[in-house]
Amino acid sequence: MATPRTAISPTREENYPEWYQQVIRAADLAENSPVRGCMVIKPWGYAIWENIQRSLDARFKATGHRNAYFPLFIPLSFLEKEAEHVEGFAKECAVVTHHRLIPGEHGGLVPDPDARLDEPLIVRPTSETIIGAMFAKWVQSYRDLPLLINQWANVVRWEMRTRIFLRTAEFLWQEGHTAHATADEAMAETMQMLDVYADFARTEMALPVLTGRKSPGERFPGAVETFCIEAMMQDRKALQAGTSHFLGQNFARASDIQFLDEHGQRVHAWTTSWGVSTRLIGGLIMAHADDDGLVLPPRLAPAHVVILPVAFKAENPQHVYDWCHALAADLRRVQYGGRPVEVEVDERDIRGGEKSWSWVRRGCPIRLEIGPRDIAQDAVFMGRRDRPASEKVAVPRAEFIDRVAGILEEIQSAIAQRALAFREEHTVRIDSAEDFRAFFTPPEAPDGAPTPIHGGFALAHWSGDAEVERRLNEDLGVTIRCIPPGGGDDEPGTCPFSGRPSPKRVVWAKSY
Amino acid sequence: MATPRTAISPTREENYPEWYQQVIRAADLAENSPVRGCMVIKPWGYAIWENIQRSLDARFKATGHRNAYFPLFIPLSFLEKEAEHVEGFAKECAVVTHHRLIPGEHGGLVPDPDARLDEPLIVRPTSETIIGAMFAKWVQSYRDLPLLINQWANVVRWEMRTRIFLRTAEFLWQEGHTAHATADEAMAETMQMLDVYADFARTEMALPVLTGRKSPGERFPGAVETFCIEAMMQDRKALQAGTSHFLGQNFARASDIQFLDEHGQRVHAWTTSWGVSTRLIGGLIMAHADDDGLVLPPRLAPAHVVILPVAFKAENPQHVYDWCHALAADLRRVQYGGRPVEVEVDERDIRGGEKSWSWVRRGCPIRLEIGPRDIAQDAVFMGRRDRPASEKVAVPRAEFIDRVAGILEEIQSAIAQRALAFREEHTVRIDSAEDFRAFFTPPEAPDGAPTPIHGGFALAHWSGDAEVERRLNEDLGVTIRCIPPGGGDDEPGTCPFSGRPSPKRVVWAKSY
Repeated sequence: MATPRTAISPTREENYPEWYQQVIRAADLAENSPVRGCMVIKPWGYAIWENIQRSLDARFKATGHRNAYFPLFIPLSFLEKEAEHVEGFAKECAVVTHHRLIPGEHGGLVPDPDARLDEPLIVRPTSETIIGAMFAKWVQSYRDLPLLINQWANVVRWEMRTRIFLRTAEFLWQEGHTAHATADEAMAETMQMLDVYADFARTEMALPVLTGRKSPGERFPGAVETFCIEAMMQDRKALQAGTSHFLGQNFARASDIQFLDEHGQRVHAWTTSWGVSTRLIGGLIMAHADDDGLVLPPRLAPAHVVILPVAFKAENPQHVYDWCHALAADLRRVQYGGRPVEVEVDERDIRGGEKSWSWVRRGCPIRLEIGPRDIAQDAVFMGRRDRPASEKVAVPRAEFIDRVAGILEEIQSAIAQRALAFREEHTVRIDSAEDFRAFFTPPEAPDGAPTPIHGGFALAHWSGDAEVERRLNEDLGVTIRCIPPGGGDDEPGTCPFSGRPSPKRVVWAKSY
Repeated sequence: MATPRTAISPTREENYPEWYQQVIRAADLAENSPVRGCMVIKPWGYAIWENIQRSLDARFKATGHRNAYFPLFIPLSFLEKEAEHVEGFAKECAVVTHHRLIPGEHGGLVPDPDARLDEPLIVRPTSETIIGAMFAKWVQSYRDLPLLINQWANVVRWEMRTRIFLRTAEFLWQEGHTAHATADEAMAETMQMLDVYADFARTEMALPVLTGRKSPGERFPGAVETFCIEAMMQDRKALQAGTSHFLGQNFARASDIQFLDEHGQRVHAWTTSWGVSTRLIGGLIMAHADDDGLVLPPRLAPAHVVILPVAFKAENPQHVYDWCHALAADLRRVQYGGRPVEVEVDERDIRGGEKSWSWVRRGCPIRLEIGPRDIAQDAVFMGRRDRPASEKVAVPRAEFIDRVAGILEEIQSAIAQRALAFREEHTVRIDSAEDFRAFFTPPEAPDGAPTPIHGGFALAHWSGDAEVERRLNEDLGVTIRCIPPGGGDDEPGTCPFSGRPSPKRVVWAKSY
């Protein structure tokens, strides 16, 4: 077998889905568990999630939301209250039916038939109904509104085909749930949280996202309108990275959330919900990682700088370690992105090359190799993850400390720019059905080879016809990812599939 | 009905269990949910949990642990691997048996018989077995050790008699899980984490805790030794507030966690686990709250200072609000306990007395009433939660800002001292079976009245005889809460129940 020229094998071009799995493995982010469809998030992956949480949580609190916690279990009858909602989740939910185990006839334990629940409990796939039941108690008067709540939690959706971070039976997320006195206020909240997500994605994740409305076929079950942020992955597919739902009065009616308004009338509240999940980590990987492994946006990196002492040839190895730790301490006094610069000193007893590559694969923004010669020159030997791994430069110690926050921001900006350029390169305006079909038809591939990367975002006119959408999904596996807000930079036109008039172009793509 | 003289009715003396529920309600901490045994943690209660989390998480990370996340579900066969462990949890677990719902014959939805799981899944009551399965993959060589992992998660134990925060079917917790190369290292970790818990309880919760070993009858199912922190509540019962388990090689054998040691031998690792939960919030309430409601230790208070503008009589109400917000901004620049002073300005349109009492009941450490007269004098009118609600003093604005961190620390210290004095007052050395029985026998109460508060911590000799422990539990409802470390300040003696020689006194109490 030939030695691969890249740290990750296969490369993106060779086999994108397999490359994704290998990046996750090489960066030690997560792995499959012995429990069907459930992942284990390992420390490096979980630390990214903690950074995502901290950053989002601050934004939620700054917009007046408070965290709370609601039960994991939802009584079956609650789920049934909203017809579309239960239809959407009944096919994929974990059902708790017993509350005790007893010894079975054939050895081992079995659910105790005497401990069967009168009403089965569903492990929450989302919490509108159970939170709605509490809101109904808490909201009595217009003075109790708006009610602005967020929950960080695990949820379960029994997916048949799972992929780590992107689609797993259990995942971690946050779900915002709010109730308002008027439709306008609820819609303003829905849009505000969409903006919060878009700002977070762009600023912290270096992820250029489109925002827009979902077509009726892609709405959250029970929502009046669903808005989303959508990002392009490096296989040119779209990833829905977050959603914000205007629920109208549907769930308020289902859960009986009523209040006395200023005129003494009992009316139903208007509600919203909005969420992002550990899927964001999948998006981070697929947007930025390269054929050498993960590339972390510095704003979310668990470590900004790794120091690699090169002490094996040193006369006085302890001096090298001491110098490295003193540098780490000085760097930790610098602030970047609202927190101190995070520094790791890697003293593992393994070969220097292997050690350095392990941090390339994990996506650490800055690597510093420091041996006796660097110390003699009072300098660090720096590699940046946004540049080729072989490109390293000597920087005087004091200058590096002065510049480290700036370099991190350069890296953040460089990977954001790269992702934006990639999206722009693969976004096309399409005006004929033939061009559309050609754009989304993969090139021929040798037998057994994975489908080559192809397609992208197609901006095409659409008249609002659900049948066109259904047919294109069936024929080409393409869906409307979002309907951009307002008039955009777009003119009315004609749907190339139905010939009907269209108010504006919408974004079509294959998706995760 | 006579007007109660206290904000909480009944008082502690009148009906302690009911007082506890009323404090939770009055402070808006949590409430029962429509899901059997599951609680809803409301924003004020959840914010306390967030402060507990932040403070503990920093201690875990400072001692080298990293967070990760493992599946919610545990395959039944995993639970069965450790005999004592499954015995301990089989009677109270939520069992997932199906993964889909379909329309039932009588309307509504039922679990789909075609979607029955081959192997039932247990909603984790604790994660030793599933984490053990992953550790078995991750640990190959002594170089992989120690492995120091923590998880923040929800767990489910199907308790029949539940009480908010103290014993609920679902609760939130952290569970540390570590693997080590030697028994000594694992024992050192066990004791280190016990110390972390004790330090956290004393420093942050203002909770004087005893530390010690559990008797064999009170051990975690599958552990070799269980250590605990125990606190006295104001009804003089003990609350186990945290546990740290030395698991020996029991779980390593059950999960096959083996490694090659430095001599190339394959040996089983030594493991530990340790946890605290939302039960801590119950302990916080029962240790510090009084007949006017919650009393929060400032270190964990979601708000340190509440500002209550008294503007209804003001010529220029806006000036009062502006002055209050400017003060809040100045206070937020002060650091206390590692974070900025947290200030709320309560502009709700309700009566001033009611508003002020609402913050007494919620346990806010400092209340500032500010009206035009205070502003004219450039002063604040301050009430402290560690003093009677009626005791308020005027403090010049600048002086208050200078002193606020110091006042908060005085309050923290005052409530810690009060809790310690209470425990000492109700801790007695007992040397005869008669005195022991008298100590734990409640005084007579009128028909239908709750059992009066009685008992406390009894330090009595014990020879290690499990039968004595069993009998005292049966007769008096008393258990050994912990066996203090080392020789203590204690001499060997004689067990008053069996007459056998005893190495030292142990702590007996009724408990939650």
